[in-house]
Amino acid sequence: MTARHDGRTPDQLRDVRITRNWLDHAEGSVLVEFGRTRVLCAASFTEGVPRWLKGQGRGWVTAEYAMLPRSTNTRSDRESVKGKIGGRTHEISRLVGRSLRAVVDLDQLGENTIVLDCDVLQADGGTRTAAITGAYVALADAIAGGVTSGAIRRGATPLRDSVAAVSVGVVKGVPVLDLDYPEDSTADTDMNVVMTGDGRFVEVQGTAEAEPFDKATLDALLELATAGCAELTRLQQAALAETPRERVQ
Amino acid sequence: MTARHDGRTPDQLRDVRITRNWLDHAEGSVLVEFGRTRVLCAASFTEGVPRWLKGQGRGWVTAEYAMLPRSTNTRSDRESVKGKIGGRTHEISRLVGRSLRAVVDLDQLGENTIVLDCDVLQADGGTRTAAITGAYVALADAIAGGVTSGAIRRGATPLRDSVAAVSVGVVKGVPVLDLDYPEDSTADTDMNVVMTGDGRFVEVQGTAEAEPFDKATLDALLELATAGCAELTRLQQAALAETPRERVQ
Amino acid sequence: MTARHDGRTPDQLRDVRITRNWLDHAEGSVLVEFGRTRVLCAASFTEGVPRWLKGQGRGWVTAEYAMLPRSTNTRSDRESVKGKIGGRTHEISRLVGRSLRAVVDLDQLGENTIVLDCDVLQADGGTRTAAITGAYVALADAIAGGVTSGAIRRGATPLRDSVAAVSVGVVKGVPVLDLDYPEDSTADTDMNVVMTGDGRFVEVQGTAEAEPFDKATLDALLELATAGCAELTRLQQAALAETPRERVQ
Amino acid sequence: MTARHDGRTPDQLRDVRITRNWLDHAEGSVLVEFGRTRVLCAASFTEGVPRWLKGQGRGWVTAEYAMLPRSTNTRSDRESVKGKIGGRTHEISRLVGRSLRAVVDLDQLGENTIVLDCDVLQADGGTRTAAITGAYVALADAIAGGVTSGAIRRGATPLRDSVAAVSVGVVKGVPVLDLDYPEDSTADTDMNVVMTGDGRFVEVQGTAEAEPFDKATLDALLELATAGCAELTRLQQAALAETPRERVQ
Amino acid sequence: MTARHDGRTPDQLRDVRITRNWLDHAEGSVLVEFGRTRVLCAASFTEGVPRWLKGQGRGWVTAEYAMLPRSTNTRSDRESVKGKIGGRTHEISRLVGRSLRAVVDLDQLGENTIVLDCDVLQADGGTRTAAITGAYVALADAIAGGVTSGAIRRGATPLRDSVAAVSVGVVKGVPVLDLDYPEDSTADTDMNVVMTGDGRFVEVQGTAEAEPFDKATLDALLELATAGCAELTRLQQAALAETPRERVQ
Amino acid sequence: MTARHDGRTPDQLRDVRITRNWLDHAEGSVLVEFGRTRVLCAASFTEGVPRWLKGQGRGWVTAEYAMLPRSTNTRSDRESVKGKIGGRTHEISRLVGRSLRAVVDLDQLGENTIVLDCDVLQADGGTRTAAITGAYVALADAIAGGVTSGAIRRGATPLRDSVAAVSVGVVKGVPVLDLDYPEDSTADTDMNVVMTGDGRFVEVQGTAEAEPFDKATLDALLELATAGCAELTRLQQAALAETPRERVQ
Repeated sequence: MTARHDGRTPDQLRDVRITRNWLDHAEGSVLVEFGRTRVLCAASFTEGVPRWLKGQGRGWVTAEYAMLPRSTNTRSDRESVKGKIGGRTHEISRLVGRSLRAVVDLDQLGENTIVLDCDVLQADGGTRTAAITGAYVALADAIAGGVTSGAIRRGATPLRDSVAAVSVGVVKGVPVLDLDYPEDSTADTDMNVVMTGDGRFVEVQGTAEAEPFDKATLDALLELATAGCAELTRLQQAALAETPRERVQ
Repeated sequence: MTARHDGRTPDQLRDVRITRNWLDHAEGSVLVEFGRTRVLCAASFTEGVPRWLKGQGRGWVTAEYAMLPRSTNTRSDRESVKGKIGGRTHEISRLVGRSLRAVVDLDQLGENTIVLDCDVLQADGGTRTAAITGAYVALADAIAGGVTSGAIRRGATPLRDSVAAVSVGVVKGVPVLDLDYPEDSTADTDMNVVMTGDGRFVEVQGTAEAEPFDKATLDALLELATAGCAELTRLQQAALAETPRERVQ
Repeated sequence: MTARHDGRTPDQLRDVRITRNWLDHAEGSVLVEFGRTRVLCAASFTEGVPRWLKGQGRGWVTAEYAMLPRSTNTRSDRESVKGKIGGRTHEISRLVGRSLRAVVDLDQLGENTIVLDCDVLQADGGTRTAAITGAYVALADAIAGGVTSGAIRRGATPLRDSVAAVSVGVVKGVPVLDLDYPEDSTADTDMNVVMTGDGRFVEVQGTAEAEPFDKATLDALLELATAGCAELTRLQQAALAETPRERVQ
Repeated sequence: MTARHDGRTPDQLRDVRITRNWLDHAEGSVLVEFGRTRVLCAASFTEGVPRWLKGQGRGWVTAEYAMLPRSTNTRSDRESVKGKIGGRTHEISRLVGRSLRAVVDLDQLGENTIVLDCDVLQADGGTRTAAITGAYVALADAIAGGVTSGAIRRGATPLRDSVAAVSVGVVKGVPVLDLDYPEDSTADTDMNVVMTGDGRFVEVQGTAEAEPFDKATLDALLELATAGCAELTRLQQAALAETPRERVQ
Repeated sequence: MTARHDGRTPDQLRDVRITRNWLDHAEGSVLVEFGRTRVLCAASFTEGVPRWLKGQGRGWVTAEYAMLPRSTNTRSDRESVKGKIGGRTHEISRLVGRSLRAVVDLDQLGENTIVLDCDVLQADGGTRTAAITGAYVALADAIAGGVTSGAIRRGATPLRDSVAAVSVGVVKGVPVLDLDYPEDSTADTDMNVVMTGDGRFVEVQGTAEAEPFDKATLDALLELATAGCAELTRLQQAALAETPRERVQ
Repeated sequence: MTARHDGRTPDQLRDVRITRNWLDHAEGSVLVEFGRTRVLCAASFTEGVPRWLKGQGRGWVTAEYAMLPRSTNTRSDRESVKGKIGGRTHEISRLVGRSLRAVVDLDQLGENTIVLDCDVLQADGGTRTAAITGAYVALADAIAGGVTSGAIRRGATPLRDSVAAVSVGVVKGVPVLDLDYPEDSTADTDMNVVMTGDGRFVEVQGTAEAEPFDKATLDALLELATAGCAELTRLQQAALAETPRERVQ
């Protein structure tokens, strides 16, 4: 088997680090690193819900994803300066929000809103999967805080499961897990898979970049992703089991 | 087996109609209907390519998707009036463009650009899959026209295969093909599958709406989609085999 | 007298077709065709009025006009993508709304709002006049529906008259009725005339394209327009007298 | 005959003042006053033309109209702050530009561009007609300057005629000339008429505000407008005959 | 001592003119001229406050600054056409608003809002300082009117002091007062100073354009500015002492 | 003397940390911390200059400042989502760019462009002064890299001096250095001072928040700022003297 350019085996994640409470103000915050990819996930908990949800006793969870202009190898123009958000940004924001909502019982959350801001500080492939994986931990912290503060009623269980995500793809003919940027930019097929802690699918988004793919390839990729997400789930649990550094605010 | 609300069997498409040359000006145009869903696909062929592609001898194919304000049950505000395009519109435009490019050999196209405008005149579920399916036929006509006019060099074969798309989903516990709006809005899982004429995958986008799904469900859905796309491929071929009504322009 | 390029006499309309209930969802909808010009007019009826009108017991009628990017010979950029609406679009939307309101008794309408979306599917001159002519029929259907549903009080007569519109112009020195695109683009003078069913003027908008015009020319054009609008009024009445195909919704 | 609220006869203009060279920088500038309506018209002459006109030896004349936020009785929000231009602003800018181009021979202008900025400092009805009337004088000065500077070739005659504009309308049943705001806001019919110095029509824009109007009314209004424009033409000529105060720049 | 290009001494203001009630509609209005710089300041008084201030018994004062496109030597594009406001415009609007609020007791103003629109009709350096100086006078008139109308309670004293502003800078090595455009564009250091009538500082904004400056230079500039603002204060008082021409509205 | 709420003396900076090469891709990058304020400064070096500077042999340095939505205590909406940049953001971006250019010899830089992105990860007062102080270090690294790579010619000395910035203000009557957010929000006067390494002023921006200030107060504040900037200059020099961690790219 040909080695990957960074020496990993095909089924190997990059070094994943999840640092909780990286920020002092946010109700939950995580700096998540998948190798050199670094995403800051901040959960903002506010009582009340958007107007269209009022009076139904249900909460709301949403997400916004963005990249800093120099997170990438070449500087990109700011979307705020351009005055509009690009399609890719929109698409990933919606994916992150949908993925998190898949494990939240909005009735149990009560009329509270949690916004997850996922800002890519450095990009090296897999930013959306890192964002989902990190945002879940920030979300869990924000929900725990809401229970503590009383904004969420005692005994409520807003989280039905955990959620994690990883990319898989076919690189030089070989299905591999957790592509970094050099791999991603040369992959034939690229797939992002979002899974719950109990091993079911929340999102499967596969795209043939160069060549359409067959069912056997799809199955091989899903197998890699399933193992990868299971490992990420363990890392999320370990992070949440630690006593994080104190928030100041 | 419980019948579907409109009497179809789980593996049955809606009535699909593909009307070529619905417009007089466009180099290719199709009114595609999946039941009551009606999408107007117009292919605009222009010589030359966007600046970032100049001088490489390669062409470009892109797409823009939009819904008329009253295509839906309740009127939506125009994106032109709001001054920005929503995330869903962006996302589908990108999907349609990527799907078409998957079957186009851009080198064979030469320095020509084809824009596919997919405007939803009436929406009843499956607008993006109808758009892809119809846009392929409009694209084929525009490419044929380009060969005839000489803009594409004689003997070039820009189309490597055909492409079609269909939605599948789990409705009331049953995997079904080609969901209409009432089904789509109550589905547990919703998946859009884009396939080439030779039966390989171009895009697989599955989303757990209410409940995460397992591998067995995923397999059942992909099987339905594979059969559905094969049927759509036959309908595309039949449409392209007809002599269409004359364009005026 | 020199013949027109399509064989019409100077005072002859193109073939006009008015197809009611072309859409399933809208409360009124018309596909109106003036020759190859094809405009889809959808009337959306909603109870309630914009905030600035609340509590006065009066209704509101407004319109939005737009062209599909490939309705024209050469593709135009989408206004939603450009992020702003052009002056011409604004101007015509305002004209259509004003023309319809001229025949509506807003007090009789009660606190209801009707939005007329006029989307040009194919443009060959006279799109704004076709839009007004078709929108009136969609409006009449939406009002009739409002009376049936009880949203408009029984016995109310919101429509004071009908309204139709036609273009006239001086082409190669000859005043002609209902210009198509080739005529419009070479006309010396171009005028759009909106008239009520009883033959009075709602709007007269004449523009000297190449050469200022005198009073005699203006009178000749208005005479043509008066006859043209009378004929369109008869076609509107005939369309409304038919039993239209059933709407599904 | 019932007197007008300010004592004018039906066929009487307000006091019209045309002050040339109100600005030091602009190549032509006029403060035009129709009673309390006050519009600052600045002509900016630049060599060269927009890209789409290059190389044809022809020039371009265009206009932008805007109102200061407190030109009106109640403050309006700035269009720059709202981030988009309203339909009315667009419509009037286009009207002013079209009206001026009607008397300019763009071939004689050579590859030069003149932009007319018409900013309403105070509004009391008739701002668009004052803008056209004043902008013509600023345009004439800018063209004269272009000839002097040599940007326009010696002997060229870019101006084919002069152009002026006035509003007419039916107020309390009486056709009147040059409506001020109180009249305009209660008029049954409102018409703006743009005419050349030789008494021909450039634009006729009549709108039934409350009640459709008949041909006899239209004729009465056009007669008033014709006399009014003739008077404005005389005032323009008088202003251009004066030696204006020196520009500093 | 080297003379300034227009013959002024280093500590000499340009001719300053303050014309009150230049507009008929606005509750306060001033045409302020600092030499050839001409700014129209309109104060709009409305009862009530923005939503975020409601129910606190306090008022609000804010400002918007803008330049007409041809106020400058070369025409600038309109910010309304560009669809966004530039940084400089934002910055100056905020400065003007802050400077005026520094002398207003918002509690004494009661729940009323005053917006100051400062539109530069002609620019020759010092537009922001002219705007502040003129806007104060318009504000004073609007407040006096509010007291007269009863919108501000009898006996309230919303104005704690007056405010004026002037620019200072180092030109060809010499500290000078009230720079015009030719001086401003060649200055080494440029400073805008806003002061109250009693001689204290509201804003000090100094910028090294070419060369950093030392404390001695800073002191020299502040001394010039202090004298200049005192003179402007006298001119404001004189203007407010006059009986202005009657407003029509 | 009353102690500050965090125990600092009036003339004491917060703990300042300057971490170089925090990013792998950027040509220079610094995470700068003033207490809990944390700003990521990334310098992007590209050969070539904006169009308006081409062919003059001079370079360009500019900056963009922004805050992450949850850098603050309460989440702010993203400027990219709002579609426009606020006045404060614009103002600070311009300040940072101007401050850096004050110490760069653009002729020595050659036709190269350096963009400094200053993104506030966490805000606790003084973000703009931290941004300037950190950006200088990132700029120095990017320039050194440009010399090494040969993009800047050997022997060129683009940096004329260093630049640092600090805030000062009057809090509870006492002039203090380097205000944190609780101090800043209650200060009577707030001043930002930008100084070169040799102790001269680049920018002095003082604002009376509650009460106008006199010359003695201004002098006291400038003295504090001068000492603070001198200390920051030493910290910048120390950071630049270290061997930073290796960048990966």
